[in-house]
Amino acid sequence: MLEGEGTHPGRDASPSQGTPSGTRSPDPPERDEAVHVKNPHLDSLEEDILYHFNLGTRTHNLPEMFGDIKFVCVGGSANRMKAFAQLIHRELVLPGDVNDIQDICAGTDRYSMYKVGPVLSMSHGMGIPSISIMLHELIKLLYHARCRDVMLFRIGTSGGIGLAPGTVVITDKAVDSSFRPRFEQVVLGNVIVRSTELDKDLAQELLSCSAEIPDLAAIIGDTMCTYDFYEGQGRLDGALCSFSQEEKLDYLRKAYRAGVRNIEMESTVFAAMCHVCGLKAAVICVTLLNRFEGDQISTPHDVLQEYQQRPQCLVAHFIKKRLGIAK
Amino acid sequence: MLEGEGTHPGRDASPSQGTPSGTRSPDPPERDEAVHVKNPHLDSLEEDILYHFNLGTRTHNLPEMFGDIKFVCVGGSANRMKAFAQLIHRELVLPGDVNDIQDICAGTDRYSMYKVGPVLSMSHGMGIPSISIMLHELIKLLYHARCRDVMLFRIGTSGGIGLAPGTVVITDKAVDSSFRPRFEQVVLGNVIVRSTELDKDLAQELLSCSAEIPDLAAIIGDTMCTYDFYEGQGRLDGALCSFSQEEKLDYLRKAYRAGVRNIEMESTVFAAMCHVCGLKAAVICVTLLNRFEGDQISTPHDVLQEYQQRPQCLVAHFIKKRLGIAK
Repeated sequence: MLEGEGTHPGRDASPSQGTPSGTRSPDPPERDEAVHVKNPHLDSLEEDILYHFNLGTRTHNLPEMFGDIKFVCVGGSANRMKAFAQLIHRELVLPGDVNDIQDICAGTDRYSMYKVGPVLSMSHGMGIPSISIMLHELIKLLYHARCRDVMLFRIGTSGGIGLAPGTVVITDKAVDSSFRPRFEQVVLGNVIVRSTELDKDLAQELLSCSAEIPDLAAIIGDTMCTYDFYEGQGRLDGALCSFSQEEKLDYLRKAYRAGVRNIEMESTVFAAMCHVCGLKAAVICVTLLNRFEGDQISTPHDVLQEYQQRPQCLVAHFIKKRLGIAK
Repeated sequence: MLEGEGTHPGRDASPSQGTPSGTRSPDPPERDEAVHVKNPHLDSLEEDILYHFNLGTRTHNLPEMFGDIKFVCVGGSANRMKAFAQLIHRELVLPGDVNDIQDICAGTDRYSMYKVGPVLSMSHGMGIPSISIMLHELIKLLYHARCRDVMLFRIGTSGGIGLAPGTVVITDKAVDSSFRPRFEQVVLGNVIVRSTELDKDLAQELLSCSAEIPDLAAIIGDTMCTYDFYEGQGRLDGALCSFSQEEKLDYLRKAYRAGVRNIEMESTVFAAMCHVCGLKAAVICVTLLNRFEGDQISTPHDVLQEYQQRPQCLVAHFIKKRLGIAK
């Protein structure tokens, strides 16, 4: 069963309605799209507790808190997403002290969430299940807050295949460990297959943006998403390993020939859930190493830090252009 | 292919060797077992960087830092595992100020790690991939540190099936979404099936301990491990839901009849990796709600906090008995 393939569920073709001034893109024109959930039970809930965010529809005024959000950026690490919020605060020249930005999810340690103007910056932890919980509650939050025209970006780190470390990969297709653009979701013990299609125009627009940033090498390529970091990605340095160096390289070569340029652990479910809910989405990950050359991440800390800022810089530049305030 | 089923790889039957005084159990007698990795490549590495812990064999003296560890307790939340470390510090009447316990992984925000005497307390985030990365690096850490006689405990939260909220479930078998005691690991694009057998004697010993703690209801039952919190666990309150209340209840009833008493998101890979590496392991999770009665976790915060302390109290009591210092 292939669910959602080729359809655009949840799209709302109604004409543009008012949105907060200063957050609309002058170019290109966008359809005005509400955020939709795909759950007929949700509207009958008296209260919706977003448990892992420590937020709820009865305890918080979600439209007031989040109604003006246009860009949601998610990444694994809480520290990195705080740094991204601070970067956006500086780049958009927002009022207030950058050091005063508060974690909206401070009441829980599951995720961290920062809001800076029309941008939400949020951590999702590591792996498909962790980002999946976050996406369910995030999409419900955007729905309850009556957000419109929202774009989602995953900015992260990854292992590269045949690329110089530090290269930014903008995902064309998110693929599974057999290089197929699909995500298998278990529902009540049965497997449902979802498309992992991402927005190709958005990927191209991000690539164009990257050309305007000095010393930022970016490409569009397929991204393989795995369920673990060691055996699933063909690493020889885990606690368990049952294959040879040659078998590892053979698998990575097959991935490369199939179009895969980097490997991470969240992109398929991110693409699938955004697709089902009609949200425009992109995945932008920097490669920390070239997996043809090794498994261990032994690059000095300061170099890794600089690499990790590259997807942030690219998305910040994109957001500024969309808001009409880029140079 | 069923890997590791019925075997005890990595077991070392050599006679007992010296261990730090005061950390040995007087009862029952234990074989002295080293921690093993199942990776022939590992010993040829000049340096092993435990990337997600910000530790390494060249930068840290792992035997000195961790060689006396006998009990490793892991759980999803960093705050909770810090609280557990403080509890153990108080219960074992260790020297120093409980507020001075430092996060050994402070250089990264992926995991938090606290060492208090022979006990390591560590967070693993949410979901199979997140705990899997942690377990690879933890088992390598214990191996590099030349630890012996180590037991692992996962202490967590879960949804209960047919149990009063607050009940502690000690896992008999960790099962998948089809109620089978197995874990499917993708290795180079192929699926390997691993046994999720846990130590039955250890589970019984924990159950006996629970009877000595006032107002702590505990049972032994099967634990279902899923890849997500919403659709995979039959919740009607996610952003996506394609099934009815009746279909949900039908699935939960099937699970109950198969022996499942609670649902969480890490137990199968935890059991599988410990089994392959010959580590004694147990899973102890409190139930936060009865899934026959609802999906949302709406219990007051202070009640949930008390529930979450129950697996901690049980494992702390077990450790004190093993160390011969329980009342």
